This record gives sequence, structure tokens and C-alpha cells, in this order.
Amino acid sequence: MRVPKGSGTGRTISGRPRGRPRRDIDPAAVADAVAELYAEGGFDNVSIGGTAEKLSVSRATLYRTVPTKDDLLGILFERSTRDLFEQASAVTSTGTGPRENLHALIRVHVDAAVRMRRYMTVFYGGAGLPPDVYQRWQDFSRRYEEIWVGAVSAAMDAGVLGRDDPQVVTRLLLGMCIWISRWYRTDDGRTPDDIADSVIRLVSGPGPT
Amino acid sequence: MRVPKGSGTGRTISGRPRGRPRRDIDPAAVADAVAELYAEGGFDNVSIGGTAEKLSVSRATLYRTVPTKDDLLGILFERSTRDLFEQASAVTSTGTGPRENLHALIRVHVDAAVRMRRYMTVFYGGAGLPPDVYQRWQDFSRRYEEIWVGAVSAAMDAGVLGRDDPQVVTRLLLGMCIWISRWYRTDDGRTPDDIADSVIRLVSGPGPT
Repeated sequence: MRVPKGSGTGRTISGRPRGRPRRDIDPAAVADAVAELYAEGGFDNVSIGGTAEKLSVSRATLYRTVPTKDDLLGILFERSTRDLFEQASAVTSTGTGPRENLHALIRVHVDAAVRMRRYMTVFYGGAGLPPDVYQRWQDFSRRYEEIWVGAVSAAMDAGVLGRDDPQVVTRLLLGMCIWISRWYRTDDGRTPDDIADSVIRLVSGPGPT
Repeated sequence: MRVPKGSGTGRTISGRPRGRPRRDIDPAAVADAVAELYAEGGFDNVSIGGTAEKLSVSRATLYRTVPTKDDLLGILFERSTRDLFEQASAVTSTGTGPRENLHALIRVHVDAAVRMRRYMTVFYGGAGLPPDVYQRWQDFSRRYEEIWVGAVSAAMDAGVLGRDDPQVVTRLLLGMCIWISRWYRTDDGRTPDDIADSVIRLVSGPGPT
């Protein structure tokens, strides 16, 4: 992650002695704070001041590490995409077969959609995003989709999916998974893995009746 | 839906001779204008003034029929949902069988996602929507989903879809179709019906290899 450190003390919020000015900004904590602000009031609600408040640091301290709102979104973006891309890459590089790879990718994406459900649309919408962050999101999306298209093609070759345009099928699958972020509720007893099971069953066809 | 152009014909939208004050406001033309404004600049870009300009009527005239921005969105909402609901209802009331009904619903929804792709998110997002319009959207969504759940249940009973929670499967299918509004391009040669074919193939399973 590309957040310059303000100092080398290495202390976290909880480890910082009371009264001592906080100098280190943990990018993960910034990402969490930005995600919360976004969830509370959308893009307009994300600000340096609000983030500083959530982190219990002064604005001046936060400014030294994260000078602009664009940088705040950049940090959330990095957190959102890096893990997802690494997990997807790991699936296809260590996968055991076309069926298992496809199913594992579905699980990775459903899990991400649920985990990032409160702010996923900030990237997919693009509206109001700093051009730099939007460009990085576009780059990520393209590379991430390439992983999927490869896995979908292999699944078609193996007869796990019916023959079709792999890019269209990839986008249908991704849309189905992304949209889960819109209707997922924590209180209905379904886990992300339960929902991923349903996705997998749905694209596996009805089977013998 | 098209907005008839008045320029060059000596007549305006309703066929009214130039120079005569316009009194009638066609809701379909208002909906088109609002959709255009939304597509051009998002929710913030929707205004009475901008709509009046697109319709070539005075603000005062538009205000008499559509006094608030909320009313503008209400008109777009009515246009967006009424046709969709009627089409879906027609499918299930006149359908020929569980497989045909499910496939017809998929075609209706894919077509709507493509047709309304530039402003569909204004409703699904909910952010910034007038509470009244949002409430009506929620009501519509619930009733529309009920139609789908019925068709999905029947498809499961008939072995057209694998057995699963009909509501979850409905939401997966709807999400897959709604998301098409995000990636559909007019210039890649695929029609909404081509994409609906892919959706239907995908949920029909790989079949015999």
C-alpha cells in the first residue's frame, strides 16, 4: 500500500500512550474509517475531517499522511482490490481443475461482495471518483476480469459450463455475485458461503430430475 | 420512447403551432428528459430548469404540471416500473409453461436493464431519492420480485431449475440481469435478446458434453 508514513514509531491507536500525539496512520484503519463514512452518507460524506475524527487523530496529523480526499479513496481502493486480486490469482495458479477453480472464484467474489457491500458501489459507479482512482479501478477490473474469463473458458472446455462467449458469461456471473452486495442481510441466517453454494448450483443446471 | 422534435417542422412536441403557449406536458417526454439529464450528470443534474429546457417549454409552464424535482423523479419512476410490471404480469398470466415463463421473464428483465441502463441505478441506489419515490420503488420491487419468485418456484417444481431457495435464486437471476445495464454496449453487435439467450443457457446448465 502506498501510504507514506509520518514517522517510524510503529504504534497503533490502542498502543499509543494517552496524550501523546499520534504520528502513524495505519492504512487499514483509514480504509475502515472511509468505508464507514461512505456507508453513513455516501461519497459526499467522506472527508479528511471525518476520517480524522473516526481515527481519533488530529486533522493535521492525518493531512501529513493523506493530504487529499482523493488519497482517502485511493487507500480504500487499494484495500478493496489488492486482496481480491491476490485471492483470485491464487485460485487459478494453484487450482485443482476447471470446476474447482470456477467454484473457488465464485466463492472469492461472493465473499468480497458481502464484505465490501457498504462501499462497493463507490467504485462501480465511478461518479465522483477522482480520475486517478477511477483509472486504477478500471485497470484492476480489466485484469480481474481476465482471470475470470480464463477460468470460465476452461470450465466451458471441460463441459462444466455450456459453450458461450466467455466474456459475456463472465460478466453475467460477476453481476450476479456483485449484486449480492445489494440484497445481503446479516440477519437472515445465510452466510456468504451459503449464497455461493446457490450460485454454484444455479450455474450447474438442474441436473437429473 | 422518443421525444418528438419540434424544430424544423414549425410545430412543437404536441403538434402545437409555434408561438402558442404550451399547456400540455407529456409525461413520457418528461421521463425522457429526466433520464437524459440523469445520464449526463447524475442525480444532481436533474432539475426543473434543465427539464424545461430539454422540453422547450418555459419553467413556469413545467412548474404548473411538475412543481418539484421529486415529481420529476416520480414521473421517471412511473414510466420505468409500470411497463416492466405489466410485461412481467402478462408473462405469468398468459405463459405456456414453467420453462417458457422463466425464459420470458428473463427476456423482459434483460430488455428493461438495457433500455433503462442510463438511469436504472437512480432507483436501485436509493441515495438522494425523495422518500415518496423510494417508497414506491420499494413497493414495486417487492411486487415485481413476487412475480419472479412464483415463476422460479414453478421452474424448480418442473425441474427447469435445481431445487433451492426461490427467493435467493430470484435475486441471483435479477442481479445478473440488472448488472447488464452496467456493461452493455451498443457497439459490440450483441442485442438484448442475444444476452438473454446467454442468461438462459447459463442457468440451463452445461447439458450433455
